Amino acid sequence: MTNNKMNQLADEINQLLSKSIPESSLNTNLEDSMRYSLEAGGKRIRPVLLLLTLEMLSNEYEKGISAALGLEMIHTYSLIHDDLPPMDNDDYRRGKLTNHKVFGEWKAILAGDALLTKAFDIIVNDDKLENSAKIKLIQRLSFASGHLGMVGGQTLDMQSEGEGTSVDIQTLEQIHNAKTGALLKFAVMAAVDIANPEKYVAEKLESYSEHLGLMFQIKDDLLDVYGDEAKLGKSVGSDIENDKSTYVSLLGQQGAEDKMKYHTDAAYEDLKQLPDCYNTDNLVYIIELFNNRES
Amino acid sequence: MTNNKMNQLADEINQLLSKSIPESSLNTNLEDSMRYSLEAGGKRIRPVLLLLTLEMLSNEYEKGISAALGLEMIHTYSLIHDDLPPMDNDDYRRGKLTNHKVFGEWKAILAGDALLTKAFDIIVNDDKLENSAKIKLIQRLSFASGHLGMVGGQTLDMQSEGEGTSVDIQTLEQIHNAKTGALLKFAVMAAVDIANPEKYVAEKLESYSEHLGLMFQIKDDLLDVYGDEAKLGKSVGSDIENDKSTYVSLLGQQGAEDKMKYHTDAAYEDLKQLPDCYNTDNLVYIIELFNNRES
Repeated sequence: MTNNKMNQLADEINQLLSKSIPESSLNTNLEDSMRYSLEAGGKRIRPVLLLLTLEMLSNEYEKGISAALGLEMIHTYSLIHDDLPPMDNDDYRRGKLTNHKVFGEWKAILAGDALLTKAFDIIVNDDKLENSAKIKLIQRLSFASGHLGMVGGQTLDMQSEGEGTSVDIQTLEQIHNAKTGALLKFAVMAAVDIANPEKYVAEKLESYSEHLGLMFQIKDDLLDVYGDEAKLGKSVGSDIENDKSTYVSLLGQQGAEDKMKYHTDAAYEDLKQLPDCYNTDNLVYIIELFNNRES
Repeated sequence: MTNNKMNQLADEINQLLSKSIPESSLNTNLEDSMRYSLEAGGKRIRPVLLLLTLEMLSNEYEKGISAALGLEMIHTYSLIHDDLPPMDNDDYRRGKLTNHKVFGEWKAILAGDALLTKAFDIIVNDDKLENSAKIKLIQRLSFASGHLGMVGGQTLDMQSEGEGTSVDIQTLEQIHNAKTGALLKFAVMAAVDIANPEKYVAEKLESYSEHLGLMFQIKDDLLDVYGDEAKLGKSVGSDIENDKSTYVSLLGQQGAEDKMKYHTDAAYEDLKQLPDCYNTDNLVYIIELFNNRES
Protein backbone atom coordinates (compact mmCIF):
# COMPACT_ATOMS: atom_id res chain seq x y z
CA MET A 1 0.00 0.00 0.00
CA THR A 2 2.59 2.52 1.10
CA ASN A 3 5.00 1.05 -1.40
CA ASN A 4 2.39 1.69 -4.10
CA LYS A 5 2.19 5.31 -3.06
CA MET A 6 5.96 5.59 -3.32
CA ASN A 7 6.04 3.99 -6.74
CA GLN A 8 3.24 6.21 -7.95
CA LEU A 9 5.08 9.34 -6.80
CA ALA A 10 8.37 8.11 -8.29
CA ASP A 11 6.59 7.54 -11.62
CA GLU A 12 5.14 11.02 -11.51
CA ILE A 13 8.59 12.47 -10.74
CA ASN A 14 10.09 10.52 -13.63
CA GLN A 15 7.55 11.85 -16.09
CA LEU A 16 7.89 15.43 -14.91
CA LEU A 17 11.70 15.29 -14.97
CA SER A 18 11.64 14.16 -18.59
CA LYS A 19 9.47 17.12 -19.49
CA SER A 20 11.32 19.63 -17.33
CA ILE A 21 14.02 20.68 -19.81
CA PRO A 22 12.57 22.70 -22.71
CA GLU A 23 14.24 22.66 -26.11
CA SER A 24 16.56 25.55 -26.82
CA SER A 25 16.75 27.53 -30.06
CA LEU A 26 20.50 26.99 -29.91
CA ASN A 27 21.49 24.08 -32.09
CA THR A 28 23.28 21.84 -29.59
CA ASN A 29 22.48 18.60 -27.80
CA LEU A 30 23.09 20.07 -24.35
CA GLU A 31 19.46 19.41 -23.42
CA ASP A 32 19.84 15.75 -24.47
CA SER A 33 22.81 15.50 -22.16
CA MET A 34 20.85 17.03 -19.27
CA ARG A 35 17.90 14.68 -19.88
CA TYR A 36 20.14 11.63 -20.27
CA SER A 37 21.25 11.90 -16.66
CA LEU A 38 17.89 13.06 -15.33
CA GLU A 39 16.29 9.97 -16.88
CA ALA A 40 18.97 7.57 -15.60
CA GLY A 41 17.66 8.00 -12.09
CA GLY A 42 17.17 5.44 -9.38
CA LYS A 43 14.48 5.27 -6.72
CA ARG A 44 13.93 9.05 -6.52
CA ILE A 45 14.09 8.71 -2.75
CA ARG A 46 14.75 12.42 -2.14
CA PRO A 47 11.83 13.88 -4.11
CA VAL A 48 9.51 11.09 -2.90
CA LEU A 49 10.46 11.82 0.72
CA LEU A 50 9.69 15.50 0.12
CA LEU A 51 6.27 14.76 -1.35
CA LEU A 52 5.35 12.18 1.32
CA THR A 53 6.26 14.63 4.09
CA LEU A 54 4.20 17.36 2.47
CA GLU A 55 1.29 14.99 1.96
CA MET A 56 1.38 14.15 5.66
CA LEU A 57 1.50 17.80 6.69
CA SER A 58 -1.03 19.27 4.30
CA ASN A 59 -2.68 16.60 2.12
CA GLU A 60 -1.52 18.47 -0.98
CA TYR A 61 1.78 17.13 -2.17
CA GLU A 62 1.32 18.91 -5.52
CA LYS A 63 2.70 22.12 -4.05
CA GLY A 64 6.01 20.34 -3.50
CA ILE A 65 6.53 19.24 -7.10
CA SER A 66 8.89 22.03 -8.17
CA ALA A 67 11.00 21.68 -5.02
CA ALA A 68 11.09 17.91 -5.59
CA LEU A 69 12.21 18.34 -9.20
CA GLY A 70 14.78 20.98 -8.26
CA LEU A 71 16.14 18.70 -5.55
CA GLU A 72 16.53 15.81 -8.00
CA MET A 73 18.25 18.14 -10.49
CA ILE A 74 20.79 19.12 -7.82
CA HIS A 75 21.35 15.47 -6.94
CA THR A 76 21.73 14.60 -10.63
CA TYR A 77 24.20 17.39 -11.42
CA SER A 78 26.30 16.31 -8.44
CA LEU A 79 26.48 12.76 -9.82
CA ILE A 80 27.53 14.02 -13.28
CA HIS A 81 30.35 16.11 -11.82
CA ASP A 82 31.38 13.43 -9.29
CA ASP A 83 31.74 10.88 -12.09
CA LEU A 84 34.20 13.04 -14.08
CA PRO A 85 37.80 11.81 -14.51
CA PRO A 86 39.37 14.36 -12.13
CA MET A 87 36.82 13.32 -9.46
CA ASP A 88 35.75 9.65 -9.14
CA ASN A 89 36.44 8.77 -12.79
CA ASP A 90 33.49 6.40 -13.16
CA ASP A 91 32.47 4.97 -16.55
CA TYR A 92 29.20 3.47 -15.40
CA ARG A 93 26.41 4.43 -13.03
CA ARG A 94 23.45 2.14 -12.45
CA GLY A 95 24.55 0.03 -15.43
CA LYS A 96 24.48 2.95 -17.86
CA LEU A 97 27.45 4.86 -19.24
CA THR A 98 28.12 8.02 -17.27
CA ASN A 99 27.31 11.37 -18.86
CA HIS A 100 30.88 12.23 -19.89
CA LYS A 101 31.37 8.79 -21.49
CA VAL A 102 28.41 9.51 -23.77
CA PHE A 103 28.64 13.26 -24.35
CA GLY A 104 32.29 14.06 -23.59
CA GLU A 105 33.85 15.74 -20.60
CA TRP A 106 33.32 19.37 -21.49
CA LYS A 107 29.65 18.85 -22.21
CA ALA A 108 29.19 16.89 -18.98
CA ILE A 109 30.63 19.82 -17.03
CA LEU A 110 28.23 22.19 -18.78
CA ALA A 111 25.23 19.84 -18.43
CA GLY A 112 25.91 19.72 -14.70
CA ASP A 113 26.16 23.51 -14.51
CA ALA A 114 22.91 23.86 -16.45
CA LEU A 115 21.04 21.37 -14.22
CA LEU A 116 22.25 23.14 -11.09
CA THR A 117 20.98 26.43 -12.51
CA LYS A 118 17.71 24.87 -13.65
CA ALA A 119 16.97 23.69 -10.10
CA PHE A 120 16.56 27.29 -8.97
CA ASP A 121 14.77 28.22 -12.18
CA ILE A 122 12.06 25.60 -11.73
CA ILE A 123 11.32 26.58 -8.12
CA VAL A 124 11.32 30.34 -8.69
CA ASN A 125 8.94 29.97 -11.65
CA ASP A 126 6.40 27.75 -9.88
CA ASP A 127 3.03 29.54 -10.06
CA LYS A 128 1.55 27.29 -7.38
CA LEU A 129 3.83 28.67 -4.67
CA GLU A 130 3.58 31.95 -2.81
CA ASN A 131 6.60 34.23 -3.01
CA SER A 132 7.39 33.67 0.68
CA ALA A 133 7.55 29.89 0.17
CA LYS A 134 9.77 30.26 -2.90
CA ILE A 135 12.15 32.45 -0.91
CA LYS A 136 12.37 29.95 1.95
CA LEU A 137 12.94 27.04 -0.46
CA ILE A 138 15.68 28.83 -2.39
CA GLN A 139 17.37 29.89 0.85
CA ARG A 140 17.31 26.30 2.04
CA LEU A 141 18.39 24.74 -1.25
CA SER A 142 21.28 27.12 -1.88
CA PHE A 143 22.55 26.47 1.63
CA ALA A 144 22.08 22.68 1.51
CA SER A 145 23.73 22.27 -1.87
CA GLY A 146 26.55 24.84 -1.62
CA HIS A 147 29.97 25.09 -0.02
CA LEU A 148 28.52 24.74 3.49
CA GLY A 149 26.48 21.71 2.41
CA MET A 150 26.76 19.14 -0.38
CA VAL A 151 29.69 20.67 -2.29
CA GLY A 152 31.60 21.20 0.95
CA GLY A 153 30.97 17.59 1.95
CA GLN A 154 32.13 16.31 -1.40
CA THR A 155 35.29 18.39 -1.06
CA LEU A 156 36.04 16.99 2.39
CA ASP A 157 35.33 13.47 1.13
CA MET A 158 37.68 13.81 -1.85
CA GLN A 159 40.34 15.29 0.40
CA SER A 160 40.03 12.42 2.90
CA GLU A 161 40.31 9.65 0.31
CA GLY A 162 43.25 7.40 0.84
CA GLU A 163 43.67 8.54 4.43
CA GLY A 164 42.05 5.32 5.64
CA THR A 165 41.42 5.11 9.36
CA SER A 166 43.27 8.38 9.97
CA VAL A 167 39.93 10.12 9.40
CA ASP A 168 38.16 10.10 12.74
CA ILE A 169 34.50 9.45 13.39
CA GLN A 170 33.75 13.17 13.85
CA THR A 171 35.17 13.99 10.42
CA LEU A 172 33.31 11.04 8.87
CA GLU A 173 30.06 12.33 10.36
CA GLN A 174 30.82 15.85 9.10
CA ILE A 175 31.39 14.52 5.59
CA HIS A 176 28.14 12.62 5.52
CA ASN A 177 26.04 15.27 7.18
CA ALA A 178 27.17 17.68 4.48
CA LYS A 179 27.52 15.42 1.45
CA THR A 180 24.38 13.29 1.67
CA GLY A 181 22.60 14.47 4.80
CA ALA A 182 22.06 18.03 3.61
CA LEU A 183 19.89 17.05 0.65
CA LEU A 184 17.89 14.48 2.66
CA LYS A 185 17.25 17.16 5.24
CA PHE A 186 16.22 19.52 2.47
CA ALA A 187 13.67 16.93 1.29
CA VAL A 188 11.89 16.91 4.64
CA MET A 189 12.33 20.57 5.52
CA ALA A 190 11.20 21.84 2.10
CA ALA A 191 7.83 20.27 2.97
CA VAL A 192 7.95 22.15 6.27
CA ASP A 193 8.70 25.40 4.44
CA ILE A 194 5.68 24.91 2.21
CA ALA A 195 3.18 23.62 4.77
CA ASN A 196 4.40 25.84 7.60
CA PRO A 197 3.42 23.66 10.61
CA GLU A 198 4.03 24.70 14.22
CA LYS A 199 7.63 24.94 15.42
CA TYR A 200 7.49 21.75 17.47
CA VAL A 201 6.54 19.72 14.40
CA ALA A 202 9.30 21.34 12.35
CA GLU A 203 11.87 20.44 15.00
CA LYS A 204 10.81 16.78 15.21
CA LEU A 205 10.88 16.46 11.43
CA GLU A 206 14.30 18.08 11.24
CA SER A 207 15.63 15.59 13.78
CA TYR A 208 13.95 12.73 11.85
CA SER A 209 15.66 13.86 8.64
CA GLU A 210 19.07 14.00 10.31
CA HIS A 211 18.73 10.45 11.62
CA LEU A 212 17.62 9.28 8.17
CA GLY A 213 20.72 10.86 6.63
CA LEU A 214 23.06 9.00 8.96
CA MET A 215 21.10 5.73 8.56
CA PHE A 216 21.52 6.07 4.83
CA GLN A 217 25.28 6.36 5.06
CA ILE A 218 25.89 3.72 7.74
CA LYS A 219 23.84 1.26 5.67
CA ASP A 220 25.88 2.14 2.59
CA ASP A 221 29.05 1.33 4.46
CA LEU A 222 27.66 -1.95 5.83
CA LEU A 223 26.43 -3.05 2.42
CA ASP A 224 29.81 -2.34 0.87
CA VAL A 225 31.32 -4.98 3.17
CA TYR A 226 28.50 -7.42 3.90
CA GLY A 227 26.08 -6.82 1.02
CA ASP A 228 24.97 -9.26 -1.66
CA GLU A 229 26.67 -8.34 -4.94
CA ALA A 230 23.78 -9.70 -7.00
CA LYS A 231 21.26 -7.52 -5.19
CA LEU A 232 23.55 -4.48 -5.04
CA GLY A 233 24.30 -4.65 -8.75
CA LYS A 234 27.92 -3.76 -8.01
CA SER A 235 30.89 -5.41 -6.40
CA VAL A 236 31.40 -5.11 -2.67
CA GLY A 237 34.66 -4.22 -0.97
CA SER A 238 35.38 -1.02 -2.91
CA ASP A 239 35.76 1.02 0.28
CA ILE A 240 38.43 -1.34 1.63
CA GLU A 241 40.12 -1.38 -1.76
CA ASN A 242 40.20 2.42 -1.84
CA ASP A 243 41.40 2.56 1.76
CA LYS A 244 38.38 4.66 2.58
CA SER A 245 37.26 5.48 6.11
CA THR A 246 33.77 4.14 6.79
CA TYR A 247 31.59 3.42 9.79
CA VAL A 248 32.69 -0.22 9.49
CA SER A 249 36.41 0.53 9.27
CA LEU A 250 36.21 2.92 12.21
CA LEU A 251 33.72 1.12 14.48
CA GLY A 252 33.74 -2.49 13.28
CA GLN A 253 30.62 -4.40 12.13
CA GLN A 254 29.00 -4.49 15.56
CA GLY A 255 29.75 -0.85 16.22
CA ALA A 256 28.26 0.20 12.88
CA GLU A 257 25.17 -1.93 13.44
CA ASP A 258 24.70 -0.49 16.92
CA LYS A 259 24.92 3.01 15.48
CA MET A 260 22.43 2.05 12.77
CA LYS A 261 20.00 0.84 15.43
CA TYR A 262 20.47 4.00 17.47
CA HIS A 263 19.52 6.29 14.58
CA THR A 264 16.68 4.00 13.49
CA ASP A 265 15.12 4.06 16.95
CA ALA A 266 15.61 7.81 17.23
CA ALA A 267 13.91 8.40 13.87
CA TYR A 268 10.90 6.30 14.99
CA GLU A 269 10.79 8.23 18.24
CA ASP A 270 10.70 11.58 16.42
CA LEU A 271 7.68 10.46 14.42
CA LYS A 272 5.93 9.10 17.52
CA GLN A 273 6.17 12.51 19.13
CA LEU A 274 4.29 14.23 16.32
CA PRO A 275 0.68 15.27 17.07
CA ASP A 276 -1.87 12.49 16.49
CA CYS A 277 -3.53 14.36 13.64
CA TYR A 278 -0.64 13.40 11.37
CA ASN A 279 -0.68 10.00 9.70
CA THR A 280 2.98 8.98 9.86
CA ASP A 281 2.61 5.64 8.02
CA ASN A 282 4.52 6.75 4.95
CA LEU A 283 7.38 8.29 6.91
CA VAL A 284 7.58 5.18 9.09
CA TYR A 285 7.80 3.18 5.89
CA ILE A 286 10.79 5.30 4.79
CA ILE A 287 12.61 4.35 8.01
CA GLU A 288 11.93 0.67 7.31
CA LEU A 289 13.14 1.13 3.76
CA PHE A 290 16.38 2.77 4.88
CA ASN A 291 16.88 0.13 7.57
CA ASN A 292 16.17 -2.96 5.49
CA ARG A 293 17.43 -2.06 2.04
CA GLU A 294 19.76 -4.52 0.38
CA SER A 295 20.78 -2.29 -2.51
CA MET B 1 34.44 62.19 -13.02
CA THR B 2 32.37 59.33 -14.35
CA ASN B 3 35.49 57.21 -14.43
CA ASN B 4 35.97 57.98 -10.74
CA LYS B 5 32.45 56.76 -10.03
CA MET B 6 33.19 53.52 -11.89
CA ASN B 7 36.43 52.96 -10.02
CA GLN B 8 34.76 53.69 -6.71
CA LEU B 9 32.02 51.14 -7.42
CA ALA B 10 34.54 48.57 -8.67
CA ASP B 11 36.53 49.01 -5.43
CA GLU B 12 33.38 48.53 -3.40
CA ILE B 13 32.54 45.38 -5.37
CA ASN B 14 36.05 44.05 -4.84
CA GLN B 15 35.85 44.51 -1.11
CA LEU B 16 32.41 42.94 -0.83
CA LEU B 17 33.39 39.97 -3.00
CA SER B 18 36.34 39.22 -0.73
CA LYS B 19 34.03 39.17 2.27
CA SER B 20 31.21 37.28 0.57
CA ILE B 21 32.38 33.72 1.24
CA PRO B 22 32.11 32.81 4.92
CA GLU B 23 34.42 30.25 6.45
CA SER B 24 33.04 26.75 6.72
CA SER B 25 33.37 24.44 9.70
CA LEU B 26 34.53 21.78 7.25
CA ASN B 27 38.30 21.61 7.20
CA THR B 28 39.04 22.19 3.51
CA ASN B 29 40.42 25.06 1.47
CA LEU B 30 37.40 25.15 -0.86
CA GLU B 31 36.62 28.68 0.29
CA ASP B 32 40.19 29.77 -0.52
CA SER B 33 39.71 28.39 -4.01
CA MET B 34 36.42 30.29 -4.43
CA ARG B 35 38.01 33.52 -3.18
CA TYR B 36 41.12 33.08 -5.30
CA SER B 37 39.09 33.40 -8.47
CA LEU B 38 36.69 36.00 -7.10
CA GLU B 39 39.67 38.19 -6.21
CA ALA B 40 41.41 37.70 -9.55
CA GLY B 41 38.78 39.87 -11.21
CA GLY B 42 39.18 42.50 -13.90
CA LYS B 43 37.21 45.70 -14.36
CA ARG B 44 34.00 44.38 -12.78
CA ILE B 45 32.15 45.81 -15.76
CA ARG B 46 28.99 43.72 -15.21
CA PRO B 47 28.34 44.59 -11.56
CA VAL B 48 29.36 48.22 -12.17
CA LEU B 49 26.92 48.47 -15.08
CA LEU B 50 24.18 47.08 -12.84
CA LEU B 51 24.87 49.60 -10.08
CA LEU B 52 25.18 52.57 -12.47
CA THR B 53 21.86 51.69 -14.11
CA LEU B 54 20.18 51.38 -10.74
CA GLU B 55 21.71 54.67 -9.57
CA MET B 56 20.28 56.37 -12.65
CA LEU B 57 16.83 54.89 -12.11
CA SER B 58 16.49 55.29 -8.36
CA ASN B 59 19.50 57.09 -6.83
CA GLU B 60 20.02 54.11 -4.53
CA TYR B 61 22.49 51.69 -6.04
CA GLU B 62 22.88 49.96 -2.66
CA LYS B 63 19.80 47.86 -3.33
CA GLY B 64 21.62 46.30 -6.27
CA ILE B 65 24.65 45.08 -4.34
CA SER B 66 23.55 41.46 -3.87
CA ALA B 67 22.50 41.13 -7.52
CA ALA B 68 25.82 42.66 -8.56
CA LEU B 69 27.78 40.23 -6.38
CA GLY B 70 25.71 37.27 -7.57
CA LEU B 71 26.27 38.30 -11.17
CA GLU B 72 30.03 38.48 -10.68
CA MET B 73 29.97 35.06 -8.96
CA ILE B 74 28.23 33.56 -11.99
CA HIS B 75 30.74 35.21 -14.33
CA THR B 76 33.62 33.96 -12.15
CA TYR B 77 32.40 30.37 -11.95
CA SER B 78 32.01 30.31 -15.73
CA LEU B 79 35.64 31.39 -16.15
CA ILE B 80 36.85 28.67 -13.74
CA HIS B 81 34.97 25.96 -15.65
CA ASP B 82 35.87 27.38 -19.09
CA ASP B 83 39.57 27.30 -18.19
CA LEU B 84 39.52 23.56 -17.32
CA PRO B 85 41.53 21.15 -19.51
CA PRO B 86 38.48 19.56 -21.23
CA MET B 87 37.23 23.07 -22.10
CA ASP B 88 39.72 25.82 -23.09
CA ASN B 89 42.66 24.34 -21.14
CA ASP B 90 44.12 27.69 -20.05
CA ASP B 91 46.96 27.90 -17.53
CA TYR B 92 46.78 31.67 -17.06
CA ARG B 93 44.08 34.30 -16.85
CA ARG B 94 44.92 37.97 -16.47
CA GLY B 95 48.50 37.01 -15.68
CA LYS B 96 47.57 34.74 -12.76
CA LEU B 97 47.49 30.95 -12.74
CA THR B 98 44.00 29.62 -13.39
CA ASN B 99 42.08 28.05 -10.53
CA HIS B 100 42.77 24.43 -11.48
CA LYS B 101 46.50 25.10 -11.87
CA VAL B 102 46.60 26.26 -8.24
CA PHE B 103 44.01 24.04 -6.56
CA GLY B 104 43.73 21.04 -8.90
CA GLU B 105 41.02 20.10 -11.35
CA TRP B 106 38.55 18.43 -9.04
CA LYS B 107 38.58 21.33 -6.61
CA ALA B 108 38.19 23.84 -9.46
CA ILE B 109 35.07 22.01 -10.61
CA LEU B 110 33.66 22.11 -7.07
CA ALA B 111 34.68 25.75 -6.50
CA GLY B 112 32.78 26.66 -9.67
CA ASP B 113 29.74 24.70 -8.53
CA ALA B 114 29.87 26.39 -5.13
CA LEU B 115 30.16 29.90 -6.62
CA LEU B 116 27.23 29.26 -8.94
CA THR B 117 25.17 28.13 -5.96
CA LYS B 118 26.35 31.06 -3.84
CA ALA B 119 25.09 33.54 -6.46
CA PHE B 120 21.50 32.53 -5.73
CA ASP B 121 22.21 32.31 -2.01
CA ILE B 122 23.44 35.89 -1.76
CA ILE B 123 20.45 37.35 -3.61
CA VAL B 124 17.81 35.32 -1.80
CA ASN B 125 19.26 36.28 1.59
CA ASP B 126 19.46 40.04 0.92
CA ASP B 127 17.42 41.77 3.62
CA LYS B 128 17.36 45.04 1.67
CA LEU B 129 15.21 43.56 -1.11
CA GLU B 130 11.48 42.87 -1.10
CA ASN B 131 10.44 39.29 -1.83
CA SER B 132 8.96 40.29 -5.18
CA ALA B 133 12.27 41.81 -6.30
CA LYS B 134 14.22 38.73 -5.18
CA ILE B 135 11.87 36.53 -7.19
CA LYS B 136 12.28 38.62 -10.34
CA LEU B 137 16.06 38.69 -9.97
CA ILE B 138 16.35 34.95 -9.46
CA GLN B 139 14.03 34.29 -12.40
CA ARG B 140 16.16 36.51 -14.59
CA LEU B 141 19.52 35.20 -13.35
CA SER B 142 18.61 31.51 -13.65
CA PHE B 143 17.41 32.13 -17.21
CA ALA B 144 20.37 34.29 -18.26
CA SER B 145 22.98 31.92 -16.87
CA GLY B 146 21.40 28.55 -17.71
CA HIS B 147 21.03 26.30 -20.74
CA LEU B 148 19.00 28.93 -22.61
CA GLY B 149 21.59 31.61 -21.78
CA MET B 150 25.26 31.58 -20.86
CA VAL B 151 25.78 27.82 -20.55
CA GLY B 152 23.92 27.26 -23.84
CA GLY B 153 26.07 29.87 -25.56
CA GLN B 154 29.26 28.33 -24.23
CA THR B 155 28.08 24.94 -25.51
CA LEU B 156 27.40 26.31 -28.99
CA ASP B 157 30.75 28.12 -28.96
CA MET B 158 32.69 24.97 -28.00
CA GLN B 159 30.81 23.00 -30.62
CA SER B 160 31.60 25.58 -33.32
CA GLU B 161 35.32 25.72 -32.64
CA GLY B 162 37.45 24.74 -35.58
CA GLU B 163 34.58 25.17 -38.01
CA GLY B 164 36.09 28.48 -39.17
CA THR B 165 33.98 30.45 -41.61
CA SER B 166 31.46 27.63 -41.88
CA VAL B 167 29.68 29.21 -38.90
CA ASP B 168 27.39 31.85 -40.36
CA ILE B 169 26.75 35.30 -38.96
CA GLN B 170 23.38 34.26 -37.51
CA THR B 171 25.00 31.46 -35.49
CA LEU B 172 27.81 33.79 -34.40
CA GLU B 173 25.26 36.29 -33.14
CA GLN B 174 23.34 33.50 -31.36
CA ILE B 175 26.52 32.39 -29.61
CA HIS B 176 27.38 35.87 -28.40
CA ASN B 177 23.86 36.87 -27.42
CA ALA B 178 23.75 33.78 -25.20
CA LYS B 179 27.35 33.48 -24.05
CA THR B 180 28.23 37.07 -23.18
CA GLY B 181 25.11 39.08 -24.03
CA ALA B 182 22.85 37.36 -21.51
CA LEU B 183 24.87 38.43 -18.46
CA LEU B 184 25.31 42.01 -19.75
CA LYS B 185 21.57 42.18 -20.29
CA PHE B 186 21.07 40.84 -16.77
CA ALA B 187 23.24 43.66 -15.43
CA VAL B 188 20.95 46.32 -16.88
CA MET B 189 17.65 44.54 -16.40
CA ALA B 190 18.35 43.55 -12.80
CA ALA B 191 18.37 47.29 -12.08
CA VAL B 192 15.02 47.51 -13.87
CA ASP B 193 13.66 44.66 -11.75
CA ILE B 194 14.67 46.47 -8.58
CA ALA B 195 13.68 50.04 -9.51
CA ASN B 196 10.57 49.05 -11.45
CA PRO B 197 10.36 51.99 -13.91
CA GLU B 198 7.62 52.36 -16.52
CA LYS B 199 7.52 49.84 -19.36
CA TYR B 200 8.86 52.26 -21.97
CA VAL B 201 12.01 52.83 -19.92
CA ALA B 202 12.49 49.10 -19.41
CA GLU B 203 12.26 48.50 -23.15
CA LYS B 204 14.79 51.17 -24.05
CA LEU B 205 17.22 49.87 -21.44
CA GLU B 206 16.79 46.30 -22.66
CA SER B 207 17.60 47.41 -26.20
CA TYR B 208 20.60 49.39 -24.89
CA SER B 209 21.90 46.30 -23.10
CA GLU B 210 21.59 44.16 -26.23
CA HIS B 211 23.58 46.64 -28.29
CA LEU B 212 26.22 46.79 -25.56
CA GLY B 213 26.51 43.01 -25.64
CA LEU B 214 27.18 42.94 -29.37
CA MET B 215 29.57 45.90 -29.18
CA PHE B 216 31.52 44.03 -26.54
CA GLN B 217 31.96 41.01 -28.78
CA ILE B 218 32.66 42.81 -32.06
CA LYS B 219 35.35 44.85 -30.30
CA ASP B 220 36.85 41.67 -28.88
CA ASP B 221 37.11 40.25 -32.38
CA LEU B 222 38.61 43.45 -33.81
CA LEU B 223 41.18 43.70 -31.00
CA ASP B 224 42.23 40.10 -31.56
CA VAL B 225 43.34 41.05 -35.09
CA TYR B 226 44.24 44.74 -34.92
CA GLY B 227 44.88 45.31 -31.21
CA ASP B 228 48.11 46.37 -29.52
CA GLU B 229 49.64 43.36 -27.76
CA ALA B 230 51.27 45.54 -25.11
CA LYS B 231 47.95 47.15 -24.18
CA LEU B 232 45.97 43.92 -24.47
CA GLY B 233 48.39 42.03 -22.26
CA LYS B 234 48.05 39.00 -24.53
CA SER B 235 49.08 38.05 -28.03
CA VAL B 236 46.81 38.90 -30.94
CA GLY B 237 45.83 36.51 -33.71
CA SER B 238 44.58 33.66 -31.50
CA ASP B 239 41.21 33.55 -33.30
CA ILE B 240 42.88 33.09 -36.70
CA GLU B 241 45.23 30.52 -35.19
CA ASN B 242 42.28 28.57 -33.77
CA ASP B 243 40.36 28.89 -37.04
CA LYS B 244 37.59 30.57 -35.09
CA SER B 245 34.66 32.37 -36.73
CA THR B 246 34.59 36.03 -35.74
CA TYR B 247 32.95 39.21 -36.94
CA VAL B 248 36.23 40.00 -38.71
CA SER B 249 36.57 36.61 -40.39
CA LEU B 250 32.94 36.68 -41.53
CA LEU B 251 32.53 40.38 -42.44
CA GLY B 252 36.07 41.69 -42.94
CA GLN B 253 37.57 44.62 -41.01
CA GLN B 254 35.35 47.26 -42.64
CA GLY B 255 32.22 45.15 -42.20
CA ALA B 256 33.01 44.56 -38.51
CA GLU B 257 33.71 48.25 -37.94
CA ASP B 258 30.47 49.22 -39.68
CA LYS B 259 28.59 46.82 -37.42
CA MET B 260 30.34 48.23 -34.37
CA LYS B 261 29.27 51.75 -35.39
CA TYR B 262 25.70 50.60 -35.97
CA HIS B 263 25.35 49.15 -32.46
CA THR B 264 27.18 52.10 -30.88
CA ASP B 265 24.80 54.59 -32.52
CA ALA B 266 21.78 52.49 -31.61
CA ALA B 267 22.86 52.30 -27.96
CA TYR B 268 23.23 56.11 -27.82
CA GLU B 269 19.82 56.48 -29.42
CA ASP B 270 18.20 54.25 -26.80
CA LEU B 271 19.57 56.45 -24.03
CA LYS B 272 18.49 59.64 -25.81
CA GLN B 273 14.93 58.39 -25.86
CA LEU B 274 14.78 58.00 -22.08
CA PRO B 275 12.75 60.63 -20.17
CA ASP B 276 14.73 63.78 -19.33
CA CYS B 277 14.51 63.14 -15.61
CA TYR B 278 17.19 60.48 -15.96
CA ASN B 279 20.82 61.52 -15.96
CA THR B 280 22.33 59.19 -18.56
CA ASP B 281 25.94 60.41 -18.25
CA ASN B 282 27.24 57.21 -16.67
CA LEU B 283 25.51 54.92 -19.16
CA VAL B 284 26.78 57.09 -22.03
CA TYR B 285 30.24 56.68 -20.56
CA ILE B 286 29.82 52.90 -20.67
CA ILE B 287 29.14 53.10 -24.41
CA GLU B 288 32.31 55.16 -24.89
CA LEU B 289 34.23 52.68 -22.81
CA PHE B 290 32.99 49.72 -24.87
CA ASN B 291 33.64 51.61 -28.11
CA ASN B 292 37.13 52.91 -27.34
CA ARG B 293 38.66 50.21 -25.20
CA GLU B 294 42.05 48.93 -26.26
CA SER B 295 42.18 45.96 -23.91
